Amino acid sequence: MSGSSSEDASNTLRILVATDCHLGYMEKDEIRRHDSFRAFEEICSIAEQKQVDFLLLGGDLFHENKPSRSTLVKAMEILRRYCLNDQPVQFQVVSDQTVNFANSFGHVNYEDPHFNVGLPVFSIHGNHDDPAGVDNLSAIDILSACNLVNYFGKTVLGGSGVGQITLYPILIRKGSTSVALYGLGNIRDERLNRMFQTPHAVQWMRPEAQEGCQVSDWFNILVLHQNRVKTNPKNAINEHFLPRFMDFIVWGHEHECLVDPQEVPGMGFHITQPGSSVATSLIEGESKQKHVLLLEIKGNQYRPTKIPLASVRPFEYTEVVLKDEPDIDPNDQNSILEHLDKVVSNLIKRSGQKAVNKSELKLPLVRVKVDYSGFMTINPQRFGQKYVGKVANPQDILIFSKISRKDQKEAKIDDSERLRPEELNQQNIEALVAEHNLKMEILPVNDLDIALHNFVNKDDKMAFYSCVRYNLEETRNKIARDSDSLKFDEKDIIVKVGESLQARNLYPT
Amino acid sequence: MSGSSSEDASNTLRILVATDCHLGYMEKDEIRRHDSFRAFEEICSIAEQKQVDFLLLGGDLFHENKPSRSTLVKAMEILRRYCLNDQPVQFQVVSDQTVNFANSFGHVNYEDPHFNVGLPVFSIHGNHDDPAGVDNLSAIDILSACNLVNYFGKTVLGGSGVGQITLYPILIRKGSTSVALYGLGNIRDERLNRMFQTPHAVQWMRPEAQEGCQVSDWFNILVLHQNRVKTNPKNAINEHFLPRFMDFIVWGHEHECLVDPQEVPGMGFHITQPGSSVATSLIEGESKQKHVLLLEIKGNQYRPTKIPLASVRPFEYTEVVLKDEPDIDPNDQNSILEHLDKVVSNLIKRSGQKAVNKSELKLPLVRVKVDYSGFMTINPQRFGQKYVGKVANPQDILIFSKISRKDQKEAKIDDSERLRPEELNQQNIEALVAEHNLKMEILPVNDLDIALHNFVNKDDKMAFYSCVRYNLEETRNKIARDSDSLKFDEKDIIVKVGESLQARNLYPT
Repeated sequence: MSGSSSEDASNTLRILVATDCHLGYMEKDEIRRHDSFRAFEEICSIAEQKQVDFLLLGGDLFHENKPSRSTLVKAMEILRRYCLNDQPVQFQVVSDQTVNFANSFGHVNYEDPHFNVGLPVFSIHGNHDDPAGVDNLSAIDILSACNLVNYFGKTVLGGSGVGQITLYPILIRKGSTSVALYGLGNIRDERLNRMFQTPHAVQWMRPEAQEGCQVSDWFNILVLHQNRVKTNPKNAINEHFLPRFMDFIVWGHEHECLVDPQEVPGMGFHITQPGSSVATSLIEGESKQKHVLLLEIKGNQYRPTKIPLASVRPFEYTEVVLKDEPDIDPNDQNSILEHLDKVVSNLIKRSGQKAVNKSELKLPLVRVKVDYSGFMTINPQRFGQKYVGKVANPQDILIFSKISRKDQKEAKIDDSERLRPEELNQQNIEALVAEHNLKMEILPVNDLDIALHNFVNKDDKMAFYSCVRYNLEETRNKIARDSDSLKFDEKDIIVKVGESLQARNLYPT
Repeated sequence: MSGSSSEDASNTLRILVATDCHLGYMEKDEIRRHDSFRAFEEICSIAEQKQVDFLLLGGDLFHENKPSRSTLVKAMEILRRYCLNDQPVQFQVVSDQTVNFANSFGHVNYEDPHFNVGLPVFSIHGNHDDPAGVDNLSAIDILSACNLVNYFGKTVLGGSGVGQITLYPILIRKGSTSVALYGLGNIRDERLNRMFQTPHAVQWMRPEAQEGCQVSDWFNILVLHQNRVKTNPKNAINEHFLPRFMDFIVWGHEHECLVDPQEVPGMGFHITQPGSSVATSLIEGESKQKHVLLLEIKGNQYRPTKIPLASVRPFEYTEVVLKDEPDIDPNDQNSILEHLDKVVSNLIKRSGQKAVNKSELKLPLVRVKVDYSGFMTINPQRFGQKYVGKVANPQDILIFSKISRKDQKEAKIDDSERLRPEELNQQNIEALVAEHNLKMEILPVNDLDIALHNFVNKDDKMAFYSCVRYNLEETRNKIARDSDSLKFDEKDIIVKVGESLQARNLYPT
């Protein structure tokens, strides 16, 4: 970068990037109930200290699809304290704001003359806070309605077939720097995968070349919230599907902090994966130091600076293979207990030594994964009782498994699989159908799964009705189309209905 | 009133009073889903047109204790459009605002420098949107957290015995006019009743006399949200319990519009009962024209002006006694149907004739209460089918009863009973206990009722736990106190436990 420092400042867009704050996670837990809010508040305070132009969030701001009153109130209080102030906003949104922002006001929040927004927040939705219900609203829409957050990346999917989405970037200008910010709120991985493999299903709109400004002058950022792990390619997004014109990707959803931008060979872009700001599963990936990213962009160059989060509850993780420990006697349960006590005590000690600010020492999360092959398990609840008041999770310190990482490579994969926040068990309907040896003739199992998911988790009372209506319509249409071109017997209709189901199964919506 | 008109204006506090907007009522109904929002929007637009100083709401702004995302978003959108503007606010809140407003910001919304509030809204909670859960939050707290509403009258009840509440008024000054605004959010009628009958249980704080201003210079307003109907005095609040220093009462909860201030003989105050802005039960009282009240106060004088709501869906109500109709043949069901069809058609016609704006004609609500003594009933759903597209409620036009108003006076009472919005059936636990001939020895039936209510309707997962914990504590304390003064046998403990339960039953919390 060149020029004077003040000139630099007026041409440098400074973004604080964070994701997966999961506000409201463990809100009923006496010890951990404030964790998600403290981390989010720290993120906001870093944004304030660093005087960034805006805060960019990669989804799952809320843990629950329908956050409690308490979580909504706390989220609003934090946003109100940090986002409303007299700081001047020094960038402009030059794209069509009614297209960028899905709320009924149709403008970026700091342009509303009735609010004093000093720190704009931009967020896409994740899989936890995705839009649902008749009005297709997300919890982020509530924050958008009261002008505390700019909700973008809410794509509307077409109704039938693979569907189609069009991504319109938010075009941002600060001095001589131009940034095109693309948002893609969470879509089911399977579906997005299929769309990426279907020509023209995903349309990336590019800013028009203007006088004195070429398309290549825009610095292109994409924020998405999808599975990235590649163990099951159907359920994750391959980085190579993303367009090569991108310069920088912010990857939400994955909770492990891999904040340092990684280059994707041959694609010409880097990916940052900030990871969650609160551990929602006690696995190795979540035990690493959590960070957010300060991203400074000037022209086509950027500088990433990672900033550790100090407020996050310490989390110590280790693995133990009982049969590799010489001091354990397989016939003496006490020797197992003694060994595990030693391991846990060491983890607690290690956690205390790392603490920077002793006065604010938090009870640590402690997790020991125990490979007990050839041994008996012990009751984790009973084991944890003596750690009440010493760790934040006495009830689940120990987790028993039979395959250790040291023995089998798959265990590593198993771990990274589990890095993703808890998923809904979408096998239920499938299992049910298999168990009862049912043959589904009109409704695809997959659609029923989704309907069940929406009904239970998103309070979408119309989920089953919509599922049935959609499939009936599709079936009728298909039969009507076919019967136009050729006459067939009534008894063939059953065959046709089956074909229609098959066709839809190929492209589930 | 005297003085020039501009002097008048600067000394006259102008309040728009409305209540029971029940936002979100029937939000899943294809026809009626927008009704509650339209009426609330009209109320806000009247406030804007009349350039009132503020809008005062008497509770039940929301229909559901946990409003849907959609309802929250729509409520915020309306408030944002009408309350945020450049109109100067011309009154001052001179009381301790941290006491008046329960949110963590502790000031009236228009004094927040980061919001451009032109139309302040003040609201208490009702029984539908009352505080619940661990943090004791109401849906109104959400609107308060984002600074769109000033939530007041959220009293904190003491933990044991009858409890005690202290009401601190919002002290409002506009020129020479001083208003003390008392708010009392809904409390269970039984409990409030008992408190009113217990000395010092309800404390009304009065503004201190100041230089040039006596206590009597304050115009005192109380807003409450309770049953007013006197059929069951235990479950309603007697007007004579209210303090005589009040000048004006705004009575929420009762849905019938009795907006013209009625004097309460011997009490020295008037009561306005604006009624709901949306009909939530199809009874006679709700079929009357809905109004809001413009209240203009100058010094100790006030002028009430009722303003009809034009956006409310028309609702025609009548009653039919089959045996009084000469053209009906008891042995011919067709003659009953013909008669009822005639009645319904006339109601639809009457509704159309009343309509002011023919272009915005809404499908009316129609209700016929049929006394069928000596006749067969007919299926109301089937009857309604031919009125699909002609009325807003084809499925429940007819309601059958055996006691007609004309025959029995109690029927009238029955009606007014039903004016109140649907109540929870708090007899369930009592019935269960009676049915199974159980004897409760530690937990009062009443407390279990409340716990059940809070668990089901308010999603208070801790309701039963709190109920058990509280009663155990009380029992232990009572026994500990008694055993201090006298020694008693272990077997007497059971008697003591019983006594403790009895004592609590006298003063349920």
